[in-house]
Amino acid sequence: MTPTNTQELRVELRNLLAQGQDSAVLDLLDGLHSADVAEIAGELEIPEVLAVLQLLPAERWTDILVYFEDDVQSEILENFTGKEIAEVVLENINSDDAADLMADLSDEKKREVLQYIGDIEYAKNLADLLTHAEGTAGALMATEMVKVNQNWTVSRCVREMRRQAEEVEVVHAVYVIDDHDILLGSLSLKKLLTTGAKTPITGVYDRSVRAVTSTTDEVEVARIMNKYDLFVVPVVDDMGRLLGRIMIDDIVDVMQEEADSNYQLMSGLSDDVDQNDGLFAMTRARLPWLLVGLVGGILTSTVVGRNEGELSLIPQLAFFMPLIGAMGGNVGVQSSAIVVQGLANSSLPGTLLQRLSRELGVGLLNGMLCATAILVYSWAAGHGLMFAVAVGSSLLSVIIFASLFGTAVPWVLNHYGIDPALATGPFITTTNDILGLSIYFAIANALL
Amino acid sequence: MTPTNTQELRVELRNLLAQGQDSAVLDLLDGLHSADVAEIAGELEIPEVLAVLQLLPAERWTDILVYFEDDVQSEILENFTGKEIAEVVLENINSDDAADLMADLSDEKKREVLQYIGDIEYAKNLADLLTHAEGTAGALMATEMVKVNQNWTVSRCVREMRRQAEEVEVVHAVYVIDDHDILLGSLSLKKLLTTGAKTPITGVYDRSVRAVTSTTDEVEVARIMNKYDLFVVPVVDDMGRLLGRIMIDDIVDVMQEEADSNYQLMSGLSDDVDQNDGLFAMTRARLPWLLVGLVGGILTSTVVGRNEGELSLIPQLAFFMPLIGAMGGNVGVQSSAIVVQGLANSSLPGTLLQRLSRELGVGLLNGMLCATAILVYSWAAGHGLMFAVAVGSSLLSVIIFASLFGTAVPWVLNHYGIDPALATGPFITTTNDILGLSIYFAIANALL
Repeated sequence: MTPTNTQELRVELRNLLAQGQDSAVLDLLDGLHSADVAEIAGELEIPEVLAVLQLLPAERWTDILVYFEDDVQSEILENFTGKEIAEVVLENINSDDAADLMADLSDEKKREVLQYIGDIEYAKNLADLLTHAEGTAGALMATEMVKVNQNWTVSRCVREMRRQAEEVEVVHAVYVIDDHDILLGSLSLKKLLTTGAKTPITGVYDRSVRAVTSTTDEVEVARIMNKYDLFVVPVVDDMGRLLGRIMIDDIVDVMQEEADSNYQLMSGLSDDVDQNDGLFAMTRARLPWLLVGLVGGILTSTVVGRNEGELSLIPQLAFFMPLIGAMGGNVGVQSSAIVVQGLANSSLPGTLLQRLSRELGVGLLNGMLCATAILVYSWAAGHGLMFAVAVGSSLLSVIIFASLFGTAVPWVLNHYGIDPALATGPFITTTNDILGLSIYFAIANALL
Repeated sequence: MTPTNTQELRVELRNLLAQGQDSAVLDLLDGLHSADVAEIAGELEIPEVLAVLQLLPAERWTDILVYFEDDVQSEILENFTGKEIAEVVLENINSDDAADLMADLSDEKKREVLQYIGDIEYAKNLADLLTHAEGTAGALMATEMVKVNQNWTVSRCVREMRRQAEEVEVVHAVYVIDDHDILLGSLSLKKLLTTGAKTPITGVYDRSVRAVTSTTDEVEVARIMNKYDLFVVPVVDDMGRLLGRIMIDDIVDVMQEEADSNYQLMSGLSDDVDQNDGLFAMTRARLPWLLVGLVGGILTSTVVGRNEGELSLIPQLAFFMPLIGAMGGNVGVQSSAIVVQGLANSSLPGTLLQRLSRELGVGLLNGMLCATAILVYSWAAGHGLMFAVAVGSSLLSVIIFASLFGTAVPWVLNHYGIDPALATGPFITTTNDILGLSIYFAIANALL
């Protein structure tokens, strides 16, 4: 659906709800995919969303619920008792979605929900899933999967698959385990289809299965699945026992979030903000980095203030202040962005020293080109040769310095476990503004 | 593998190659995944890469070839004849990978390769795949898939799947077609496993399959698969005939490229540059936006130059020049980034006018907060009330203006089919620098 389409349907839905035309609401939603309904209804007020969901059969509205944003989900669930969540919501969804939904509930509500789950094995499973820290493979995995024992034959496997397939919606992998649940390998469907029924699977399964442990960071899981083109990856504990599996569609979300968050940090947005957020949410998300910029600007003003005497002697110095500041900022962002992207892809070769020496090379080349251009320009503009040399050499120094600084800061942040993306965008621009102008005035002082 | 690990193995591999220790090279690569070998060998010189590949059996090195970057792939393929490519390379890989590899060959070489392909049906398939424009669903799809006719029974389907499974490595979907190849729906494995053998599939298959046409943009395919949590999506022509299918792992690459490209544009990198590129590639990727910044800086210097008289009367004006420029840049990037991200997710609601009025609200709120802060600061710093009012009101105007400008520019670019991400990063910072300072001097002129 196109955004305009979504927008129009949302307005129509809101009107129909206000007029209490229930059957017209049902007609409107009929035939739409749950993801589309979630997109349309997700921006309505919570009471409106609840009114929509209550019109639909349980199986349908729980499916829609899964597609809502996390904050909408928890606001909706607050309107249900633990019993209702256990008996209606969780009945209709997969264990990973169930754990996601429950993760945002209060501890008391979680206990209440678990208590009302009829199937004790499922309740145990869910409780296990809830123990994994957010952002790890354990928190991302689902427990629905097809497992077969290494001692079985092909025909027993097919029989078991048929039985287990009742619970597992789509079979993407069949895992082979031993009597202690230790993951041994995987069995392709192709092998099952093309091997004689009485063959023992020991000789048939693939032993080279790649697994992650439940504590592996989700970004690392994304990197592994992406690199090795995996659709599904099994999750094991430290003993190697099979706990669950992660599908690539969950990983797509992780990748998207990671990319969005780097992009946001670089653009100076402190929060996961989108077009549809309210005026205050939007303002709040932007203010922190603006205040950082403001403090930086005030510091810069004191740097300029300390050189007031020089400025009044050579007023042309002011002409090139914005250029020096802006170029320092641009170069700094370029360098830091490359490091952040390299860290995200785990493709940063060499040591910090090697990186810095390369940046020195790039900075020298670009710096000399830009410095020569500005030297020629300002000389041609009649500012005098010595002044032109001062501006040119300042620009060269600022570009080299900003390259090194932009490379080192995210690297160091990452080394200390801080998100290196913090060092892109406003932080690096502001810092380079201050340092660049300091260099500029120091060189001007020395030369003029 | 960790980056350090990769780096070490690369050095070792290079040494062993130089010493001609072939069996040691084989030992080193033994047991490594093809993706890992590609990562290690992909950074070597082309003759070295060829030397490594020639040591390995055809099935193994063609699998490695698929994991190389596009430019490395085509450099390697240049060293093979059309006959070799047809008989060795293409024999071992899927049609989508084959089409990818061939897309970068010269037209003459393509014809030569196609001519040497033994299986005429496969050659036709491949020639068809090569006709699709890059960046469309057609160029991304593979033709290997399991198709069954609507008139068959379950047992005939299973028999056909078994036969087709010889060619298709992993079965992720079974498509149901009519006698004219028109896509009717899909059949889940679960259904096949749990339905009686003699049941006709007409009553069993799922008719709600979501397909894309071969001309759909790959970014749109990514959005659809992501939104509806699809693992595989069928590709049809305008008549609805089934042409192929796209798997989510190919889409993951598309998403990654799209995110990377937006990130690069925002950081002022003009090319797909990574850590491992040479000094000149790195310099070239950064220079264009630096030159844009340079030209912007020169324009800014003329703006300041025109206000030289004012500056010499009120030298403190220079103190806050960097602050005004930086804040304009920061706000502009924030606004444009939100629009670009909204466009990427197709989640931009409302018209440009509605967006601008919201931005006006956000700009007013943030602007008033920041302007008040700087007014109080500069008054407290002893710059005089009138001066403080001039700085404060300039900042307010600049923030509001930059919000509107940062929103409108990417929107307009997108409207005219230009990548809106061009309007993030250096472009918006530079423009706002110039316009911000013009506003600043105009207000100072009026008030002081």
